[in-house]
Amino acid sequence: MEDLKKYINEIIDFPKDGIVFKDINPIYKEPKRWNEIMLPLQKLISTTKPDYIAGIESRGFISASALSFKHEIGFVPIRKPNKLPGKVIGVNYKLEYGEDRLEIQQNSIEKDSKVIVVDDLLATGGSASAAGKLIREAGGNLIGYAFLVELTELGGRNKLDSNLFVESIIKY
Amino acid sequence: MEDLKKYINEIIDFPKDGIVFKDINPIYKEPKRWNEIMLPLQKLISTTKPDYIAGIESRGFISASALSFKHEIGFVPIRKPNKLPGKVIGVNYKLEYGEDRLEIQQNSIEKDSKVIVVDDLLATGGSASAAGKLIREAGGNLIGYAFLVELTELGGRNKLDSNLFVESIIKY
Repeated sequence: MEDLKKYINEIIDFPKDGIVFKDINPIYKEPKRWNEIMLPLQKLISTTKPDYIAGIESRGFISASALSFKHEIGFVPIRKPNKLPGKVIGVNYKLEYGEDRLEIQQNSIEKDSKVIVVDDLLATGGSASAAGKLIREAGGNLIGYAFLVELTELGGRNKLDSNLFVESIIKY
Repeated sequence: MEDLKKYINEIIDFPKDGIVFKDINPIYKEPKRWNEIMLPLQKLISTTKPDYIAGIESRGFISASALSFKHEIGFVPIRKPNKLPGKVIGVNYKLEYGEDRLEIQQNSIEKDSKVIVVDDLLATGGSASAAGKLIREAGGNLIGYAFLVELTELGGRNKLDSNLFVESIIKY
């Protein structure tokens, strides 16, 4: 998968100084490339047979929805605060400075159903870990995580339950 | 398509007083239902053969990405300000109170390529109209719009170029 890195643009000092942003949008605009990079996740879905794929707003919606629709699996959105209507469950999590929060709709998934959390990027693991808690609080059976890109030196993987699979395609 | 309305939850006074929010998340979590509601858009794509589908952040990412990936068409994100890295093109548009802005990455689409803008909901048409301008400023050939839900009494359709197709599946 090393050669797929050439399709990822590195943007210096975005969204703030000192960060090198991995821009994976160039992958989505070329369908063959996109399908190729997603093959390991498609295989993972075929073997683990989740009932739902949960996507984290908003970049995570892209891959999670794509996989769900093509493979005929339910898609469930995990969103930033006050975006989901009706009754929601929320989890706060720490950022480098301050705190953030993710929410899921109550009754969005069947009890004990198998759920995979999908996002574009695994960095510090804060949002992924919070998303996993939300799935469990909503009654789901969290079976694993899948990411397009992993920034391994940030150690996000260590924040996630070691009993679950954590799949990432392109590692930095 | 009238019977599909039973899968849409109406949430009173969300996100603010006086608004009845159409919650279409229940559609996504049932793959058969989701595929059924998307059939007209899938047919539209098969007949119009766009080169790209542009999705408007963040709910529009869900349908746009789903359609793109399954039908092997390029997906291009249109996002809120300061979310897209690198060089961007922006368009401001009016809201009921105040103003908002959408952006697209420069060089995100090939010149004169055929593009459809997809969003979950057509309301006043402000964001859809802005998205269309972005496609043209980015060099694309905007051929039409597709929405899951249209709130017809808000007249959003009238804000969109009458030479283009404007497809919506469930009309209120």
